[in-house]
This record gives sequence, structure tokens and C-alpha cells, in this order.
Amino acid sequence: MDLSKLSIHTITTKPWPIETAIDEFSKAGVKGITVWRDALNGRDIRQTGALARDSGLSIVSLCRGGFFPSTDVNKRKAAIDDNKRAIEEAAQLGAPLIVLVCGSDPGQPLEVSRQQIQDGIAAVLPDAKDANVKLAIEPLHPMYADTRSAINTLAQANDMAEALNSPFVGVAVDVYHLWWDPNLESEIKRCGRNNHLAAFHICDWSVPTKDLLNDRGLMGDGCIPIKKIRGWVEETGFNGFNEVEIFSNHWWAQDQSQFLQKIIKAYREKS
Amino acid sequence: MDLSKLSIHTITTKPWPIETAIDEFSKAGVKGITVWRDALNGRDIRQTGALARDSGLSIVSLCRGGFFPSTDVNKRKAAIDDNKRAIEEAAQLGAPLIVLVCGSDPGQPLEVSRQQIQDGIAAVLPDAKDANVKLAIEPLHPMYADTRSAINTLAQANDMAEALNSPFVGVAVDVYHLWWDPNLESEIKRCGRNNHLAAFHICDWSVPTKDLLNDRGLMGDGCIPIKKIRGWVEETGFNGFNEVEIFSNHWWAQDQSQFLQKIIKAYREKS
Repeated sequence: MDLSKLSIHTITTKPWPIETAIDEFSKAGVKGITVWRDALNGRDIRQTGALARDSGLSIVSLCRGGFFPSTDVNKRKAAIDDNKRAIEEAAQLGAPLIVLVCGSDPGQPLEVSRQQIQDGIAAVLPDAKDANVKLAIEPLHPMYADTRSAINTLAQANDMAEALNSPFVGVAVDVYHLWWDPNLESEIKRCGRNNHLAAFHICDWSVPTKDLLNDRGLMGDGCIPIKKIRGWVEETGFNGFNEVEIFSNHWWAQDQSQFLQKIIKAYREKS
Repeated sequence: MDLSKLSIHTITTKPWPIETAIDEFSKAGVKGITVWRDALNGRDIRQTGALARDSGLSIVSLCRGGFFPSTDVNKRKAAIDDNKRAIEEAAQLGAPLIVLVCGSDPGQPLEVSRQQIQDGIAAVLPDAKDANVKLAIEPLHPMYADTRSAINTLAQANDMAEALNSPFVGVAVDVYHLWWDPNLESEIKRCGRNNHLAAFHICDWSVPTKDLLNDRGLMGDGCIPIKKIRGWVEETGFNGFNEVEIFSNHWWAQDQSQFLQKIIKAYREKS
């Protein structure tokens, strides 16, 4: 694979400030960057967006909105306000998409959290439309159902995107969250048919996985059939970036320049 | 809840030898015991079964068979032999059921592992029938899809039990593995309609969960709606034991007599 569709999430090389990430990605031939909001702390967002574009990088999306559910109505309102701010930030940055980690509150049934997610997205959709920023529902692995997302399968994300039925709502497919699902191929097809497939994230599942959150593997170092899943995604007509999103205490502790070279090699050969 | 349907897995109080567990469970009014094979090491299995029954405990099942898939044909053959030994042990113990942790090999596609599971169960079914021991397919949480089970939803377990179509094949429902599934209620109903619901395991999902394997919570200490799920199970006509299966580095480090009292209190009030 050439690098024309390679994007890297700023959190993948978390030790680097975003200015360093932009410079290093660009010099290495990477063509896209996915920006996490924490990377923008203290920056002029418009200038940071311009810096990325001037360096030859497409801004693929802003991560992340979401976290809508709560047993506390004030926290639900605060979440909606925060998502509106994220939409403003995406517009300033020049990101066409926000990825939603939808949220879940362990103090209430999953069905209630799911309804609050749908209501929360509906509440911010007018802002998204005004800003011309799309929102992508990202189903998260079931091991995050307690606090991170009550949307745990692609079928659920597809259901919700269909229910919201807006050109400003799509779905993010991440191999880490979905690789185990026996219905993955058919749900990717369904997502594509609906024109809802808005983002594609890659990494690998480490064997063994030592930490629920921060032990993701480099492509090829685990057991996810990344090429097969990418094939299903591309068969839908998806023509967007392949985004490398790796949370890893192991990799964050390494030299990031060397890690970037490993990412590029793994992307070319194992993705 | 009274204790007439309470069973405890020997691994829940792992620090106790099985003889101590039998004695303590019995004195505390527990009515069932689920025996892990490691607890039988070095014992006369028939005598151990008799000891449990003489102490007033029903032997609910033997844990665990399974682990059928492998890229190595010799390992697949060894797994079938091991499952035949487990069937002999269950018969000697007087356990009517073996729970299958079906297995998965990260070196091959999940679909291949799934077929090897089905083939493996089919290969040992004649032995199960001869011994009058039932086999329960236990779907495991998707976070175990790499090495422990390629069967990760109740729908998959139901599909396989229906395909095998034998009175000696059932399904084990464990709230820890399945609580997140949006189709859980309908799949429990389907399982019951088929007369496949053979076992019901309880514990809780700790928030946060610090370890993928050994951080299960006591009922009521997490976010699983245990009573609701038990209600669905009982609506099918299931009249078996509620089996407490907790793997926990935290609880194993505590005084096991005090832990047993906490289990009984949590069972009465939070299950």
C-alpha cells in the first residue's frame, strides 16, 4: 500500500505536541491527520488547522465528541454543550467529521443510555448542519459498555444512524472494536448501502491484551484480520483514509520517530 | 432469595481445597457446588462426589471442557481426548453437565475456530451420550475472542446448539459475558424455547475493570442488571441453580470465610 490514504491519530504518538506530529507525519509521507481535542489545548485552532494543511496533511476528523448519557440531567446538558463546542472546534480546524465515543453510565440500564445518546445527537444535529460537520457514531468494544459506550456493535450504530436519518450522521468502523463480530461483513455492507460509512480506524488486538484501554497493537502484531476487513470496507465504495489509532503504554514509552517508521512499515505490509 | 438454588464454583473460593469448600458451603446453607477440574487434582473423583452429596450439596456441573480449536491438528486431537477424559470425570463425579469454554486460536480466522469447535463437540458427543453427561456451550465475552472462545454471543451459541441438535448439547448463560448484548432477552427466550438453557452463572462487572480475566465483582458491586437477566432466564421455565462464578485477585486475597458470607448476602439481596 502506498501512503496516500494513511492518516494517523495524534493520540497514537501522544508524547509529541501536535506541531511535532504535523512536521514528522508530513516528512514521513503520511497524508492525513486525525486530531484529538487534547492536542489542541492552548493552541489557536484555526492556525493549527492551517499548519497541517500547509504541511500537506488532510485533516480527517476531530476526536472526540459524545459521552451523552448520565443519570444527572445537568451532566447531560453539559455534554450537549461540550459537543456543540466540539462542532465549533471542528469547523475552526477544518475537520469535516467528529467521531463520537457515545458514552454510557453504569448507574442506569444500557437501554436508557442508548436513548440518551440518540437524544443527545439529535440535540446537536442543527449545529452540525450549520457548521457543515458530520458526526460519526463509533461502536465500541463490549468491554467498554460500562462507562464509554452503550453502542457496542455495528448493527446498533447502523440502527441509530438510520433512525436519525440525516446526511450529518454517519458511522465510524474501528477494527479493534468490531473484529470479533460474526455479523461484521454484513453490517459493513449495510453501513455502506446507507452511505453511512464515514471513517475507518485500524490497529491490532494484542495477544495477550494486558490492559483494557492502553494495550492496542501495531497492525500485524495481533490477531485482527485487518486486510480482510479493509476489503469489506472498500467494497462498499469507501474511499476515505485508513486511520491508525493506537493507544499503547508500550509504544508511548518508545522513541516516537522510530515508532512512526514502524507504523508506516506495518501499514504498507500488514494493513 | 433463599439459598435453595445457590451454587458456588470452586474457583470462586480458589484458596480453599475442595474438601474445605464442600464443608464451608454446606455449613453456610449453600445447596450446590460447581466443580473445576483443577480442584480434583490428586483426589479420588468418585469419593469427592460422594463427599459433596453426603454434605447436602448437589453437583451442578464440571468446569470446564472445550478449547477445541488449534492450527495444529495434533493439538485438536489432544483436545478431543481431553474432553473425553472430562466426560469420564463428570460421570465419576456425578455431574450431569460439563461447561465448555470453547477455545479460539489467534493464528487462524474466527470462522475456522468456530467450525473446529462444532466439529470437536460432535466428535465427543457419543461419549457424552454414553456417560449421560450434557455439554453446555458457554458464549464468552468478546474480549476473550483471541484465545478463549470464538463463540462470543448467545446467538452464536444458540446457532451451534441448534446445528448440533442433540439432547446432550445445551448452552450456559453467564451474565458477565452477555450483559452488554442488545439481543440478550430475545436470545434467552430462543434458548429456552429450544430447551437448550442448561446453566446460569452470575457475578458482576466491576467499574472500572482492572484486569481482563481476574477482576470480576460480587453481585451488586458492578453494573450488570442481574435480577433482570435472571427474570428472563426464569421466564423460560429454567429451574436450575444460580451459580456464583467469580474470578478475582481481590477476593482471592481476602479471608474466604468472610468472602463466603458476603457472597451469601449479595446473593440474597442483589441477585
